[in-house]
Parts: sequence; C-alpha cells; structure tokens
Amino acid sequence: MNSAMTQQQDDIAGLMHDLGAQAQAAAHDLASASGEARSTALRAAADEIRRQTPALLAANGEDLAEADRRGLSGALLDRLALDEARIAAMADGLDAIAGFADPVGTVLAEWRRPNGLKIARVRVPIGVIGIIYESRPNVTADAGALCLKAGNAAILRGGSEAVRSNHAILACLKHGLATAGLPEAAIQLVPTQDRAAVGEMLRMTGLIDMIVPRGGRTLTERVQNESRVPVLAHLDGICHTYVDGAADPGKARAIVVNAKLRRPGICGATETLLVDRAVAASLLPAMVDDLVAQGCELRGDARARAIDGRLKEASQADWDTEYLDAVLAVRVVDGVAGAIDHIGRHSSHHTDAIITEDAAAAERFLAEVDSAIVMHNTSTQFADGGEFGMGAEIGISTGKLHARGPVGVEQLTTFKYVVRGDGQIRP
Amino acid sequence: MNSAMTQQQDDIAGLMHDLGAQAQAAAHDLASASGEARSTALRAAADEIRRQTPALLAANGEDLAEADRRGLSGALLDRLALDEARIAAMADGLDAIAGFADPVGTVLAEWRRPNGLKIARVRVPIGVIGIIYESRPNVTADAGALCLKAGNAAILRGGSEAVRSNHAILACLKHGLATAGLPEAAIQLVPTQDRAAVGEMLRMTGLIDMIVPRGGRTLTERVQNESRVPVLAHLDGICHTYVDGAADPGKARAIVVNAKLRRPGICGATETLLVDRAVAASLLPAMVDDLVAQGCELRGDARARAIDGRLKEASQADWDTEYLDAVLAVRVVDGVAGAIDHIGRHSSHHTDAIITEDAAAAERFLAEVDSAIVMHNTSTQFADGGEFGMGAEIGISTGKLHARGPVGVEQLTTFKYVVRGDGQIRP
Repeated sequence: MNSAMTQQQDDIAGLMHDLGAQAQAAAHDLASASGEARSTALRAAADEIRRQTPALLAANGEDLAEADRRGLSGALLDRLALDEARIAAMADGLDAIAGFADPVGTVLAEWRRPNGLKIARVRVPIGVIGIIYESRPNVTADAGALCLKAGNAAILRGGSEAVRSNHAILACLKHGLATAGLPEAAIQLVPTQDRAAVGEMLRMTGLIDMIVPRGGRTLTERVQNESRVPVLAHLDGICHTYVDGAADPGKARAIVVNAKLRRPGICGATETLLVDRAVAASLLPAMVDDLVAQGCELRGDARARAIDGRLKEASQADWDTEYLDAVLAVRVVDGVAGAIDHIGRHSSHHTDAIITEDAAAAERFLAEVDSAIVMHNTSTQFADGGEFGMGAEIGISTGKLHARGPVGVEQLTTFKYVVRGDGQIRP
Repeated sequence: MNSAMTQQQDDIAGLMHDLGAQAQAAAHDLASASGEARSTALRAAADEIRRQTPALLAANGEDLAEADRRGLSGALLDRLALDEARIAAMADGLDAIAGFADPVGTVLAEWRRPNGLKIARVRVPIGVIGIIYESRPNVTADAGALCLKAGNAAILRGGSEAVRSNHAILACLKHGLATAGLPEAAIQLVPTQDRAAVGEMLRMTGLIDMIVPRGGRTLTERVQNESRVPVLAHLDGICHTYVDGAADPGKARAIVVNAKLRRPGICGATETLLVDRAVAASLLPAMVDDLVAQGCELRGDARARAIDGRLKEASQADWDTEYLDAVLAVRVVDGVAGAIDHIGRHSSHHTDAIITEDAAAAERFLAEVDSAIVMHNTSTQFADGGEFGMGAEIGISTGKLHARGPVGVEQLTTFKYVVRGDGQIRP
C-alpha cells in the first residue's frame, strides 16, 4: 500500500470518527429534548420539503442525468426519480411520523419489590443508528425521521447515484432540526461515497449502536459479515403461500394472484406456491390460468408438471430463490405437514401464509412455521409496517433478536431499568 | 497444516454440525410441546439431582482433584466446588424456574385493521441457544433450565475443569426431559474441550440462533469479535455510585459500603465512587473510615486525596477498571452534571446509582445516564435478576439490543406476528 492510499484511509477514518462523535453528542442532547420538539422538527422539515420542491426536483434531475449518462437501468432510474407527487408523499410521511405517539419515556412495566424498591422498565432511544441504503432518495427522509422520532441520532449512507437528491433532502431535515432548536448533527449524511466509509461505520462500535442495511442481498450480506456493530437486517423475502386441501377455491385463487403479482418486486411477494396433493388436480390448473393470463412464468416440480404442462421444470435452486419478478415456483406437497416441512427448509423466515377453511390445520401452520409473520387466509403482500398499522417502517427484520418483522419507531428504541429506593442495601 | 490436523478439524466441524442439527430438531419439537411438559421436565430433573447427590459429589470430587493437581487457584477451586447445600440450591433453582409463568404463546399485543385483518404479536422461543461458560458447574443446570423453560434447545459449552460435574448434571437434566417425553437433544453439552469447537459454534449461523457468553472479559471479547451468530453479552460491570451534595449522610455511608463490599466480586459491585465537591470535605473521611475498616483499598484523584490522605493516587486506568475486588476508585466531581459526564465517559452501561434527597437531581441522573440499570438511593449490588423479581437469570446484558439488564426466561424468547384473515387481498 502506498502512502497516498494510507493517508486517504486515515482521512476517512478520522472523518467518520468525527461524524460519529458529533452524532453521539447529538444523541445525548436528543435524550433530554422533549417529544414535542422532535415532532416540531419533523413538521418543519415536511413544510420545508414542500417549499423546496423546485430545488429537490433540480437536484434529482442532476442525479438522473448522471445516472442516465452512466447507463443505469430503467428500474434503477425509476427508483431514483422524484416527481411532485413523490415529494408530496415524502412530506406527508414526515407529518404522519410526527403525529405518532412519542415512544420515549413510556413505562413498559413497573413493579414494587418486598423491600420497597420500585422498579420500572422505561423505553429509551437506542442512541446512534447507522443506515446504509441504495438508490431511493425518500429513504433519507423516512429513515432520518423514524430515527429522530425515536430520539436517536442517524448517520445515513445513501447510494452514490442519489447524492445530490439526498443532500437536498438533508438540508430540509436540518432546517426542521434548527427550527425546533435540536442539534443539526442529529441527522447526518456520510459526506463521501468512498466505500471505505462503510467499512469504518461497521467497526465504530463505541460510536454507533446499531446498523440497519436497507438494500439488496449483496449489501446486506456484506454488512452482516463485516459488522462489529449489531445489525438489524432484512435478508431475503422468500415467502410461501400454501393452498391446503380444505381451502376455499375462490379465496385461494384471488389470494395467490395478489400474493405473487400485485407488486412482484416487494419483499412480501410470494415466491413459492405450495399446493396440497388433495386439491392439486382440481385447483392448480385454474390458478395457473389466472397467473399465466397476467404474464407470470411458472416453474414446477414433477408432480405439479404432471397436472399442468404449462409449468417449466423447476431446479433445486428455484426453492431458494427470491425472484422479485413475475416468476413463481410451484410444488405439490402432502398436506400441512408437507408444507411446514418445505417451508422449514426453504423459507427465509419473513412471511408465510396458509389458505384453508380447516381451523386446526391453520393453527398448526401458524404455530409451527417459524417466520417473523405467519398468515391465514390472506395475502403475503400485507407484510408491511403501514398495512400493520405501525406507520412508516425502515424495513422488515428477518432476524429473531431485538425486533422481528416490520421495523417502525418502537423497534428503534430500547429500554432501561429505573430503580427507586429509600436507602435499601442488599442483605 | 498436516493432514492429521485437517482431519481433526473436519471431525470437530462435523461433530458440531450434528449437534446443531439435533438441537434444531429438538427445538422444533419443543415449539409444539406444552408448557406443562417443560415444567414437568424441570421438576423431574430437580428430583433426580437430589437423588443423585452422591454421584454429583463424586464426579465433582474428581474434577476438584484434577484441578488441584493442575495447581488451580483457591478462588477457582471454590467456584468449581459442589457440596450438599450447593446441589440442593441447584435443584431448588430448577423447581423455581418450573414454577414461573410459561412465557411461550403469550399474546403481547393484538389489534384489528380496518380491512378486518386480525394481527397478534405472540411470544415464541428463539430456537437454539449456545451458552459458553467457565468453571461454575451450576451454570449447566441454570442455563439449561432457563433455555428449556422458554422453549429453546440449548448447546452448552462448559469449562474443561468442570467436565465431569457438568456431565453428571446433564444426565439429571436428560432424565427430566425423558420423564416428560421431551427430546433429550433439547439440552446438550459439547462433548469435546477442543477450542476449535467454540470457533465452530460461533460460525453456526444456520443452526444456532443466539450465543450467550458467560465468563470473564477474555471469553466475552473473543465471542463478540469472532461470532457470526448474534451475541447477547455481558461485558464489564464498571458501576458507579454518585453521592450528591443533597445526599442523606447516613444513607450514603450505608449504601456505599454495601455497594462496594457486600460481595466485591459480582458484576453489580460499585467500582468507582463519585462524590460531589459540595460535601466531599464533610462526608468523604467518614466514608473512608467505613471502607478502610472493612479492608478496602482506596485510590483517589487529586481533589479526593487533598481531603483524605489515606487514598492512594489513582491512575487514568483506574477509571476504566473492573476490580472485582476490595478496591475502590474515588473522584470528586462538580455536582450531578460532573457525575453524569464522568459516567458517560467511563461507565460500562451496566448499573449506576445516585444518592440524593434532591428529587430533581435524581430525575436528571436517572434520565441522562445511559445504562441498563439506573438507581436512586440504593445499592448497585441489587443489579440482579433475582433481586428484580425476575427469578433466575443467565447474566446481565450490557448491550442495548434485544435484552438489556438481567436476562431471565422472558429475555430468552422472541415473538412473531400472527395475521388472521378471511380472504383479504391487498389493494
């Protein structure tokens, strides 16, 4: 390694350390600020976003122009693009988060010991949260706002293609913070796109309390493998819908089409359809009709293909693939036990559903499938913080610790025990 | 690396993988077993421990004899030793855990969406928990029992010096499992003392859901640095007691002696005494009298030493040291702000206390000190799951995610969302 490179790495390490120290100081100030001040900041930021719509569109236009020059794909350009409606939705999102109940200071439990000690478990902010994300600029507003609402300082590391849009949004957030008298370092953007900055974030155990990666599998896996800071990660959404022998055929057909095709690119989209052997012959062809009519490609196991020749042959890899596209793997299984077994081996523990009118089969599925969200007679596309009534979310956690499922404001807090005595000493 | 070494490593990897797969299968069975079966297993294990007291004493005697031959220290021999009272306490502990409310299946929250979807957040076991600990054989019973109560399978890795004692205790636990018709693989001991087995555990992300290290700093740091499996760790207990200017002198003296000297070796023992400048001259000498009379060594900053010459000079390192011994660092600070500042820079975020009759100072301290447990007018030695009324604990978590403070049965669970519909599809 030459000395210029070493110097550059030292510079980035120093830069990130300063950013972390400022975030930590801001987190300390936020901990003693009122919930009202945090909501005021969010509402002022929302207003500023509305006022700055032309500036946001201009910054985003520059990002889009450069992305186009660099030959980015249409899907990526769509994720990157802001328009007046998206900007309005972003501002409305901040107002909605401002309106949520303040989680900080909530007494989660309280009890008194025989010796008179009063013990309370009280919700508190986590501290400093690092968020690493890709192209969507609205994440800057959503993630920054959710962290602030929960009393945390945020260090945001967005994608290089959205850098101008992200800074324009950040300016609005900082305007909100200043309006409410809160430290501007409560929400910061990493000012360099050097990948070494991400490596630094993942090692800043004394300064960052939690890392949330929000992006594709490559990003999440890198973060999970490298991070020394605890990670709240959304890995894959390999979601299953199991159509049981006792399913209502009409419900099953409507739910399967919705679960796969409403928006095939979201993490709650069903990727594998499991059909009970008992109804495969009678029900599968109709479901294939529905799906094929809407342009879905189907890949089946031997039993499914024997029933409907329109299915291509599925490979072993299909059972472990998150297509995020209009492709569905189909397998015939032996009843609810067969479905639970397949899901146990192939699910990513995100969301799995059973369609049945048999209450006992439903309860068995709901109890035995070990996923963040288990569903009965509904579409896996409902796996979403907004649809759960939790307001905005920062992602869906597929891990089992701290938070599972949609990660909203409450999931961005921790708690502490407050013990009040009157001179008690321990015998 | 020669081929014999490679072969040995492959053997250990294979052995650990088999152990993990058996634990995972057992965890699946436990998830559908009743809480009553789990309690029955614990009670039967307690009875068996009482019946097998002579066998446990004999196995422990062999461990002690070998430890003695290897020249282990007196403190270590004491931690390793079982006697009839300790064995009875271990059995009573299992009965107590059996008597706790069953956490599994508890509905933590439940709500209905406008579209009719019913959503419930339900407590479920985490799955497979790996516990890595050192010499105390009673951890085998406590940790295995807490995991089982919460519906988890446990993979236990005890210290080499306790290997015969641990296997004798494990036999009693397995007797309990068999009595209740539960899989014996629900609690397993790693059958080799090869250190490579620990390395394997820390990489078994698909088979172990959480690792709990329970031991000294070297062990915990190794686990935190190497583990790819999420870790619930207790790092240091650098606990502070701050005597405010408005402290009741009698309470302050009694609490400080208790907080330091009741049992200096536990993690909740106070390691640093902070004294408000306003009362240092009047109160510190009396506190030093109390502590010195009970054999405590004192190390002070310049201001403290100017008030009481019995204090040795503290070095910078003293503020960051967990003595676990009859040694106390003493610093004079400028009021509650000075105390909060010192604690922010030196606390291990375990337990910190303020002694004061000034309610505003107390509330400020309780709000601003960012530790798992914050206390007012009582002894840091109360930082203990049993003293909190949570029953047995597996340790005190100093991390902020998942669980903070005492880790009891409830903290060894997670939750899932159960969504019940009637054919709803997402618009």
